[in-house]
This record gives sequence, structure tokens and C-alpha cells, in this order.
Amino acid sequence: MELTHHREWTGRVFIGASLDGFIARPGGDIDWLTDPLPGPRHVSMTSANEVPGWDDFLPSVDHLVMGRGTYEKVLTFAGWPYDGKRVIVLSSMLDADDARITVARTLEDVLRELAGSRARQVYVDGGKVIQTFLRAGLIDEISIGWAPVLIGAGLPLFGFLDSDVQLSLVASNAGDGGMVHARYLVHRRAAQSEGEAVSADH
Amino acid sequence: MELTHHREWTGRVFIGASLDGFIARPGGDIDWLTDPLPGPRHVSMTSANEVPGWDDFLPSVDHLVMGRGTYEKVLTFAGWPYDGKRVIVLSSMLDADDARITVARTLEDVLRELAGSRARQVYVDGGKVIQTFLRAGLIDEISIGWAPVLIGAGLPLFGFLDSDVQLSLVASNAGDGGMVHARYLVHRRAAQSEGEAVSADH
Repeated sequence: MELTHHREWTGRVFIGASLDGFIARPGGDIDWLTDPLPGPRHVSMTSANEVPGWDDFLPSVDHLVMGRGTYEKVLTFAGWPYDGKRVIVLSSMLDADDARITVARTLEDVLRELAGSRARQVYVDGGKVIQTFLRAGLIDEISIGWAPVLIGAGLPLFGFLDSDVQLSLVASNAGDGGMVHARYLVHRRAAQSEGEAVSADH
Repeated sequence: MELTHHREWTGRVFIGASLDGFIARPGGDIDWLTDPLPGPRHVSMTSANEVPGWDDFLPSVDHLVMGRGTYEKVLTFAGWPYDGKRVIVLSSMLDADDARITVARTLEDVLRELAGSRARQVYVDGGKVIQTFLRAGLIDEISIGWAPVLIGAGLPLFGFLDSDVQLSLVASNAGDGGMVHARYLVHRRAAQSEGEAVSADH
């Protein structure tokens, strides 16, 4: 389902994954990402087109959309990282008494909230929600950091698609700890002039 | 199963994958890799530690191990690309009258062939065979090229593992056509001094 109606916002993914494509272990642990085992040495590689890091990315977004699993993971963090941003949790079941979030039951509800809230830069987080947004043509930009580890099982970053999603590589570098970063814009064939990568608000 | 007996050879993976981790579409097509649709523009990025390309890699190996699916894919190529190299096809069923290959029925048979043939640099190809070798601790080096496309379904590069495989990033660059290349050595905790990445014959 491609939602072709006009939208005012850019859908952005910023995520770390294991080299085998998982964003968390089956139980949700991200220790392999946040606390990698010491030992392996890595090269780092600067670039003329480096992928902006978290400290640049987070201030650039005004809204977040995430699933229940991601929300519950964030609740385990030392503090709420999203003060000043509108956070929408897409969940058919969640019953939370938390003034920091808005619960949306369906994708259509999310889109209504984003439109009503004049969203411009939307950070889309969590595997299932990222996959839902990708299938609906609502992702414009993907920044991935590949951690130098294979974990063998877990929650997948990507999932089934109705058709290929062509990407335009706009930045890449190798950062600390063997992380390989790459930033892509989603290439929309129908909505563009020849050879131009497009994304909303870019 | 970690095969801890001594081996004289280095197990090497050199492969292209879609950004969502597939090495081919469900039917085996690799058009998304070999003939990407025109349109998206990409940055390229040189590096002080570039990943050696195919033209450097192929001459550096003396043996190949692949599965039946990969073998049958290679047969569709314009020519046999592996003249001068010993090619072992791991397949329980294949009945081929092809003097260019040796069929091995089990992993143990492959290992016996490699030892008897004094293998030194072994190119391990195909998703299932790569996964089998990874699980058995027989891969020392992985070079991946990530193509700038999500294909949504296909033959996965990686699979289930009994335990994490830590990797050491040794090279990365962004090449033509938006390919992000990274080269890793498998980091073996038990067989090494502190902080040193090791791989057989390196």
C-alpha cells in the first residue's frame, strides 16, 4: 500500500543493526550494540560525506513514531530521551497512562496525528513500525550503523516488501568500534525527474 | 559445532547482498545486483583501507566451496570463471558429470578434500554453505558489498548461529553505484592474545 496523498513531513530512520540485520536479540537486548565485548580492533574511516550522528540527528526531528516494544524499551533507559518532541506509539493494545506519548491504534491514526500536529521531521523507530512505514512508502531517509557482530537471531530491521525500494547512497563512513555507517535517501521513480533522488523536504 | 582441529587454510567470504540481507531473490535472480535500475545517484568514498575488489580477490584464492544452488547459478554464466582453481560442491543430492568440480556429500567430506588438496585460501560461496561454515567456525574473513536496494525477500546471506560471531573491521569504502563495502576478520576469543584479531594464515 503506497499512501500517495500529500504529506508535509519527512520519514526518517536512524538505527543500529547487527551485521546480520537484527536490531535486538529475541528478548529485546541490545547489549551487543551498546556494550560490545572488548577485543576486536577496528579501522575507522573518515569521509567527505559522513553520516550525521545521534547528537545531530535527534535535535533535527520534531516527532517520533514507534511501536509498543520500542516504547517499553525506552522506559528502561535512565531518562526519557525525547523531551520536547511529540511521541506517537502505534499499538493496537497499549493502555498507558503516560502524558509524554500519544497512542495511535492504526497507521491511519498516526498519519492523522502527524498532519494535525504539523509534523515536519518524523523519526520512525522499531522494526515493525519501520517495516510498516516502508511498505506504505512513508520512509524518505535511512541511516544505518552496522555493528561488527553476527548475533544469529533477533528482531529483524527489515521485512517483506511488495516491491523493491531503490536507495540513493548519500553518505558513508566507519566510526568508532567498527561501526560502518551509511545514509540513504529513498529513490521514488514515479515522483521525480530523471536521475534525481528525492525526499520530502529535502 | 566448532571444528577445532587444525586446518591449514583460511575460509573467506566475498559476497554482495541487498541492504536487507539477501544474496538473491527467491528464484535465484541477482538482477538487482548486476543490473541495478538507473536513477539513483550515489556518493562514492575512497578510503585509506579499501576493500579489495573481485579482480584482486579471485586470484588470491586456490579453492572454492559452494552449494548446489550456487553451482547451478554459475553454470548460467557466459563462461566458467574458476579455471585453475579446485571447486568443491557441497551437496547431498547433486549427480553431475563435470570434471571441473568435486562433489562432497558432507561437511566432513569437504574438509577431507581441502586437507588432501593442500588448500590454503578457500573462497566459501552461497548462503547455506556460508552459514554452515560460520556455524562450524570455518570462516576467517568476510567481505560484503551492500547494494543500495531493499528487495524484501530472497535467499538470506546469514542465518542462525549458536553464539555471537565478533568481527574486526579492517577495511571499508563506498564504491561505484552506491555499493558500501566492508571487510571483516572473524575475531576468535579463545585462540588469541588480548585485543588481537586473528585469522588463520594472517
